[in-house]
Amino acid sequence: MFAVTILGNNSAIPTLERHPTAQIVTCNEQLLLIDCGEGTQLQIARYKIKRSRLRYIFISHMHGDHYFGLIGLINTLSLLGQKEPLTVFGPPELETILHLQLECSGTTLQFELIFVPLREENQGVILEDKELRVSFFPVHHRIPCFGFIIEMQKRKRKIIPDQARAYEIPAAYFSHLQEGADYQRKDGLLVKNDWVTLPPPPGKRYVYFADTQYSEDLAVYAQNADLMYHETTYLQQLEERATERFHSTTTQAATLALKANAKRLIIGHFSSKYTELSGFEEECRQVFPNTDLALEGTTYLI
Amino acid sequence: MFAVTILGNNSAIPTLERHPTAQIVTCNEQLLLIDCGEGTQLQIARYKIKRSRLRYIFISHMHGDHYFGLIGLINTLSLLGQKEPLTVFGPPELETILHLQLECSGTTLQFELIFVPLREENQGVILEDKELRVSFFPVHHRIPCFGFIIEMQKRKRKIIPDQARAYEIPAAYFSHLQEGADYQRKDGLLVKNDWVTLPPPPGKRYVYFADTQYSEDLAVYAQNADLMYHETTYLQQLEERATERFHSTTTQAATLALKANAKRLIIGHFSSKYTELSGFEEECRQVFPNTDLALEGTTYLI
Repeated sequence: MFAVTILGNNSAIPTLERHPTAQIVTCNEQLLLIDCGEGTQLQIARYKIKRSRLRYIFISHMHGDHYFGLIGLINTLSLLGQKEPLTVFGPPELETILHLQLECSGTTLQFELIFVPLREENQGVILEDKELRVSFFPVHHRIPCFGFIIEMQKRKRKIIPDQARAYEIPAAYFSHLQEGADYQRKDGLLVKNDWVTLPPPPGKRYVYFADTQYSEDLAVYAQNADLMYHETTYLQQLEERATERFHSTTTQAATLALKANAKRLIIGHFSSKYTELSGFEEECRQVFPNTDLALEGTTYLI
Repeated sequence: MFAVTILGNNSAIPTLERHPTAQIVTCNEQLLLIDCGEGTQLQIARYKIKRSRLRYIFISHMHGDHYFGLIGLINTLSLLGQKEPLTVFGPPELETILHLQLECSGTTLQFELIFVPLREENQGVILEDKELRVSFFPVHHRIPCFGFIIEMQKRKRKIIPDQARAYEIPAAYFSHLQEGADYQRKDGLLVKNDWVTLPPPPGKRYVYFADTQYSEDLAVYAQNADLMYHETTYLQQLEERATERFHSTTTQAATLALKANAKRLIIGHFSSKYTELSGFEEECRQVFPNTDLALEGTTYLI
C-alpha cells in the first residue's frame, strides 16, 4: 500500500468546509505527515488515521497554514502515551519555536523528538530505509519553501523464470533469489544471482510541490512521477495575482505536470474566495487530462 | 447585553465533539476573547461571532489548550483586513513566541498588535473603559496561570424620584442627572446632583477561574459574582488525581462557588476521558444548585 490521504486542501484562511494543508502518506505500515496546518490533529481523528504509527513529519515552510497544528499534534501524541521517536523535518526556525513552546508549558515529552533542519544548500535525500526514500528540493515562494519526493523502494529483485528453470533452481528457493542470494547447486555450480534475476524495478514516486510560483525548472523533480501534487491557489484568470503572491494557477500546475510527464496530478491549496471547485479540475484537464481535486478525506493510490 | 459564549469546554486533548478552552465575552458592542485553544478561529466562524469586533484577548497560561489557536486567529484577522488595534494580555513568553512566528513567516500585520504581559506581582486592573473593567489574579496551577474578573460598569447614576420631584426638576432633565449633572433652577437654587441621585449600582461581574487546583483562598475573587466559571476537569471520585495535576473536581468547584456566594456557576475543561457529562452537573448541584455545564455554542447571560 502506497497512497496519500488528504486532510486539508485550503489556503491560508481555514473555513468550516476546507482545512489548511496536511497530507498523510501511507507506505505499508508506516505513516508520514506532510505539512500540518491548524486542526490537523482533529482531521487525523476524523479520518481515523492511526496516529500511533506516525514516525516522520515534513514541514514545507513557515507559513502558518502549513505548521500551526504541529505543536498541538506533538502535545497530544505525548499525552496519549506515544513512546516511539518522532522525527520532524522542517525549516530551522521551527525547531526554535517548538522548543520555546515546550519549555514555557513545562512539557516533558513522553517520546524522543528529533528535529532535522532543512536548508536549501543541503537539498537531496533526507530519509532512507528499507522501504522509503525521501528527498527535498527548493520551490519558489516568498519565504524558503520545500517540496518533497517520496519514493517507495522495491526491495525484491525480479526473477527471470526461464533462466531460473534452465539452472534447475527449485521454486522453493525463489524468495531467496528475490532477496539477492546466489544458488549453490549439488553438482558444484554456483549460480550467481544476477544470472537469473533483474534489479528491482524503480519504486513508485509521489512528488509534493508545496506553495510555489510556476517555474518550468521545477519539472525536473517530478519526471515520470506516478503521482504529483501541486497547489492551484487560483483559477487561470488570476495568473497575475498568483505570480505576485508566489502561488500558482490551474493551468500552470497542469503545464508543469505535462512537462514532467507525470502520470497523474492532484491539486489543492484553493483560495478561500472559491466555494465551488469544479472549475479547478476543468481548467487543469484542458492541459493535463489525468487531474483530480485533492479532496479532504480521500485517499489517492500512488 | 453582557454575556459569555462558550467556544470550547474540553481539557488538553481536543476531540471531534469538544474543543479546547475559548470563551467570548460580549459587552454590548465589544467582544473579548478569553483563552484561545487550537481551532478557536473555526469555532468563532461556526457560531457566527463577529470577529471584526474583537479588540481584547486574554490568555490565562501557556498550556497549549489555552493558546495554540491564537497565532492562527491573529493571522486570519490580518488576512481579512482588520485595521483596528488588537490587544493581547498574557504571560510574557507568549509575546516572544508570537513575534517569532510572525517574523519567520515574513508577516506584516494589517493592524497594531499590542501585547500586555501579565505578571503575578502586578495583579489587579488591566483594562478600564467607559463600560468595562477587567482585572486578573493568580490561581494555583503547575505553571503561572491567571483568572480574570470582567465587570460591566454602570455609568448612570440612579435617580431618587421623590427627591427629584421635590426639587421640581422636569423629567426631560433626568438623563442629565443620570450622567451626574447638577440642576440650575430658575429661582437661583443650584440642585446638587447627589441630593437627587444615588451612585450607579455596582456592575455585573463575570469571574473566570482558569486551570487551578482547589484553594479556598480563591473565593475572595468571586465574592457575590453574578456568574462564575470554574474548571471541573474531573468528577469528585478523582480528587487525588485532580490535586496531583493542579486541576479541580466538581465538588471543589461548587464548594468555591458556595464560599464566594456567587449567584451562578458554569463548569468546563472536562477531561477527554469522559464522554458523558451529566455527572458533572449532578455532583456540582449537590453542593451549589445553580450550576450548569458550559456547553459549546451556548450563551450565558451574566
